[in-house]
Amino acid sequence: MDIALLVDEIKRKKSFLCIGLDVDLKKIPSHLLNKEDPIFEFNKAIIDATHHLCVAYKPNTAFYEAYGTDGWASLKKTIDYINANHPKIFTIADAKRGDIGNTSTMYAKAFFDDLNFDSVTVAPYMGKDSVEPFLAFKNKHTILLALTSNTGAFDFQTQEVENTFLYKRVLEVSKTWENSENLMYVIGATKADFLSEIRTIVPDNFFLVPGVGAQGGDLKAVCDFGMNSKIGLLINSSRGIIYASSSEDFAQAAASSAHQLQQQMATILAEKFI
Amino acid sequence: MDIALLVDEIKRKKSFLCIGLDVDLKKIPSHLLNKEDPIFEFNKAIIDATHHLCVAYKPNTAFYEAYGTDGWASLKKTIDYINANHPKIFTIADAKRGDIGNTSTMYAKAFFDDLNFDSVTVAPYMGKDSVEPFLAFKNKHTILLALTSNTGAFDFQTQEVENTFLYKRVLEVSKTWENSENLMYVIGATKADFLSEIRTIVPDNFFLVPGVGAQGGDLKAVCDFGMNSKIGLLINSSRGIIYASSSEDFAQAAASSAHQLQQQMATILAEKFI
Repeated sequence: MDIALLVDEIKRKKSFLCIGLDVDLKKIPSHLLNKEDPIFEFNKAIIDATHHLCVAYKPNTAFYEAYGTDGWASLKKTIDYINANHPKIFTIADAKRGDIGNTSTMYAKAFFDDLNFDSVTVAPYMGKDSVEPFLAFKNKHTILLALTSNTGAFDFQTQEVENTFLYKRVLEVSKTWENSENLMYVIGATKADFLSEIRTIVPDNFFLVPGVGAQGGDLKAVCDFGMNSKIGLLINSSRGIIYASSSEDFAQAAASSAHQLQQQMATILAEKFI
Repeated sequence: MDIALLVDEIKRKKSFLCIGLDVDLKKIPSHLLNKEDPIFEFNKAIIDATHHLCVAYKPNTAFYEAYGTDGWASLKKTIDYINANHPKIFTIADAKRGDIGNTSTMYAKAFFDDLNFDSVTVAPYMGKDSVEPFLAFKNKHTILLALTSNTGAFDFQTQEVENTFLYKRVLEVSKTWENSENLMYVIGATKADFLSEIRTIVPDNFFLVPGVGAQGGDLKAVCDFGMNSKIGLLINSSRGIIYASSSEDFAQAAASSAHQLQQQMATILAEKFI
């Protein structure tokens, strides 16, 4: 999917919300558990109820792999359902992959060709030749971990590296890679203070921002420091939306929770892009 | 699996060889392609021909995910086949996962519970709370990327970080994590020069060493600088063994290639552990 289409959709829907589809069978409403594919049924209901309020869906692969082959089949059904019914919605495989060259190519094939996601999250530790195989796919996007929202981010990412910090070096070095225009970055909302400096390093790329909601980030601050002239932000919320209710009204509750965030986003967009 | 059993098996088989099961349908003998599950048939033949020569098998998940749900099913059949027929062989899911706490727990469940691997490779970029959920599993092992064998290793891993290098900081910090006795490390054989210093930081842990063979590492040098009193090394070879021949004799050729490495290992073990 082309970035220009994503930006158009953000403007049309007045939303830059990404909904994380992290389905835990222990948390979904019990009446779904006797369905043939409870994970897919849950996702389908969430998608049907929220697709007009968000511009992206982000299944986290861990939650599917934990259920083995059946889980992988549920992931496939979920992405197929989104692509068939909402082709203008941007899809993210939150997979945090990365390996040596030919192996990264196989991961890229898994997520871009076989599953047909628009993007995949990738870890930077193994460097250029572990990321470029993903970047080589046309009209597909590689969302590189830069500064994550968890406390472990302070173990290595914020360490000083040759007069800068590791996460900044990741940003700077990755700009020099082939097809770097296909890069987006994961920047945790809990680190909003860091955002304006990050924007000066990568002014044009989209950021995927987790940590608004369950992890406590502040939407307004993230937008003030992280937006660029093409909006440039996808704000993810997972648990705060999909587990807004554990009763039979879960999809309605998810829509209501997504609507609240979308309304805040509409206000921010109106202020910044009159 | 307990490490003491792995060490016993190394001594009994006179081998510390790990065989990487990275099955690419474009590279396997064409007569297998009309079988119902060519990936599993290939692996089964390789395992039947080599199990007495190695102490570990390491399927790389990318090569299974690239074939979607069918590929994941082939992975499941492969690990089930190893566990059922060769329960003393150490199994490694080369998955290079890592995510925030509850998500890493789901990955750990996928590989340790659902698939029943003995170990999984994990990337360190997200820090302590992304790795400890794996370490919490008893008798399971987390193989942390430290210094990889690819050229991209020089992008970040060998960068100077507060009077040391990033990969050394990963080693040092990871030692302080809960259940760190369950850690092993990926140390690329192409970086044999670094091994003696690495051993002083983590004297007791096993290293998984890729890059002997196709990537050009030297077995003798790796053993001279990397072994400890409990051997402490698993040397991986993938393509050099499983693609030793692309004809109908592929399994025999794989065994012959594995046998060559095993013989070199037997000589080294005899020299060092008389």
